[in-house]
Amino acid sequence: MSIENTVKRLYDEAIVVDALNVSNWESPAVFKSLHAGGVTAINATSAIWENYREGMDNIAAWLRRFKAYRDILTQVKTVQDIHRAKADHRVGIILGWQNASPIENDLDRLALFYELGVRIIQITYNERNLIGNGCYDRRDEGLSNFGVDAIREMNRLGILIDLSHVGDRTTLDAAEVSEKPVACTHANARAFFDHVRNKTDEALKLITEKGGMIGANAFPSFFPNTFDTTLQEYVDAIGDLVERVGIDHVGIGTDYTQDQPAAFFDWLFAQQGTRYQERPLGYPDPLIHPKGMETPDKFVNIAGELLGRGYSEADVAKILGGNWLRIFGEVWG
Amino acid sequence: MSIENTVKRLYDEAIVVDALNVSNWESPAVFKSLHAGGVTAINATSAIWENYREGMDNIAAWLRRFKAYRDILTQVKTVQDIHRAKADHRVGIILGWQNASPIENDLDRLALFYELGVRIIQITYNERNLIGNGCYDRRDEGLSNFGVDAIREMNRLGILIDLSHVGDRTTLDAAEVSEKPVACTHANARAFFDHVRNKTDEALKLITEKGGMIGANAFPSFFPNTFDTTLQEYVDAIGDLVERVGIDHVGIGTDYTQDQPAAFFDWLFAQQGTRYQERPLGYPDPLIHPKGMETPDKFVNIAGELLGRGYSEADVAKILGGNWLRIFGEVWG
Repeated sequence: MSIENTVKRLYDEAIVVDALNVSNWESPAVFKSLHAGGVTAINATSAIWENYREGMDNIAAWLRRFKAYRDILTQVKTVQDIHRAKADHRVGIILGWQNASPIENDLDRLALFYELGVRIIQITYNERNLIGNGCYDRRDEGLSNFGVDAIREMNRLGILIDLSHVGDRTTLDAAEVSEKPVACTHANARAFFDHVRNKTDEALKLITEKGGMIGANAFPSFFPNTFDTTLQEYVDAIGDLVERVGIDHVGIGTDYTQDQPAAFFDWLFAQQGTRYQERPLGYPDPLIHPKGMETPDKFVNIAGELLGRGYSEADVAKILGGNWLRIFGEVWG
Repeated sequence: MSIENTVKRLYDEAIVVDALNVSNWESPAVFKSLHAGGVTAINATSAIWENYREGMDNIAAWLRRFKAYRDILTQVKTVQDIHRAKADHRVGIILGWQNASPIENDLDRLALFYELGVRIIQITYNERNLIGNGCYDRRDEGLSNFGVDAIREMNRLGILIDLSHVGDRTTLDAAEVSEKPVACTHANARAFFDHVRNKTDEALKLITEKGGMIGANAFPSFFPNTFDTTLQEYVDAIGDLVERVGIDHVGIGTDYTQDQPAAFFDWLFAQQGTRYQERPLGYPDPLIHPKGMETPDKFVNIAGELLGRGYSEADVAKILGGNWLRIFGEVWG
């Protein structure tokens, strides 16, 4: 049996999870690409700098999309929903946030958003919020009182805590305080590529020793060759993480930003989402992900590269989504 | 001439400023008491945990009150407005916040609220916000990037920065970053009474060496005898501050909470204004300020006690309001 056939069979059977996709949800091409790529479920970023009202409106927009795209999309609130998405050949949408900003100052709103399907929350995005600090702020003293209580409430409800863009000390604090496994849905090792968005070995160790997960990030800025990065270099990042934390704790978190305009990235890097930098980022427009995996319809190539490097079929299945499925089951309950 | 006559003449001529009053603005008795007491101007707390919309609504309510009570109240936006209030025998209302929460994540809103008359902003209230930390939070790493820019914008606009409820490190950071004098409108020395709400000697020194002001606080919880505290003990706190930072840097910030219901205090101490403590504070209801100065209509007694202790008339006038007038002029421009 040729490796191509093995890849096809394995991929067709696998639960494929992308633990971070922050594409333009108003672009139909995004959903077509995910569906064509056979992606089983994605953590679909539904808040970055949004406040309560805006965070709610984003979910209202998803309800509209679930109806409009019901042939190819389905909302995921449970692990069973992911299995159902696979069986139905639809793309499972897990509502996730990259910032806890929509709860503003009220922890009761976590239960409200949980009810609506929010299952993954990155506790801070790049900068400070009421919970703790982001990785780009000038200082980080860790979780606030409100932050400790937020972790406890997310544990109680069954919301996966995401620490990707979180500051170093807040990351360690959250991993320590959480009674359930936590994740970095989209971050690599800082020792692999030295960038504040990548995680220290101390953090990777603490998170994974407690059963947590790391999603290897494919965002081009966090690779030495930036916008010339290739699929092979992305798989290097996966391999690096596997060596550091073990095969059971690594998954995929592409950070796809499909069809996002240049203004989107300037907004991401505006201070608290409002104060734009004097010099725009100058990202290529459109921003292209690593060659060979530019869009989700090429997701199978990740499996092919892993198999080609000698990973066992079982290990490839773990990386493609099996590991994410395990932690979702443990945290969502 | 008897001391009583001296007190009366001095007080009648003085600009009397209370740098912190957080009373129930829907109680007509509050304004009657201020007017009867001959108070020239107060920093009227108009936000504590409020968000953008709520902060705006609080100002709308003030516009209604300025109309309803136009015979005895007048809005203060400039030092000239304070002199006019004195001449007209009306109480000047300076709109002030005890938390920057109404700007949420957008520094442009500082100019908007300045336009509406907000002239004093305490940058944090008890806990963490986007700018920095409050005095009751578990940690304090100082100003965030957003916080540094907030200080600069308040400097540019001419908004007095208040550091009373602010955490120790954020207090020092803000005093260092600010290019204009800053204040603690209502706090005493921690060396006088050991409480996190009182300020360290390091902070008092830094603030006043840069031309700043400290408003002696009369809130009963921050005195050894709590709800049995007397006017004399309050004037001890004034005297203590005068010894520490000099006669030119001390004023009055009573923290009057006239006609506030018990639920108000529970809200103040609710985490981020939303999560109430399991055990209510148990403050006396109604909460009474120090004996001899229970309400603002007895404000003249502070002048009497100061004169009785041998302060010169000029020094009493400084403490009563002259010093506040000076810093308002320097900061508001």
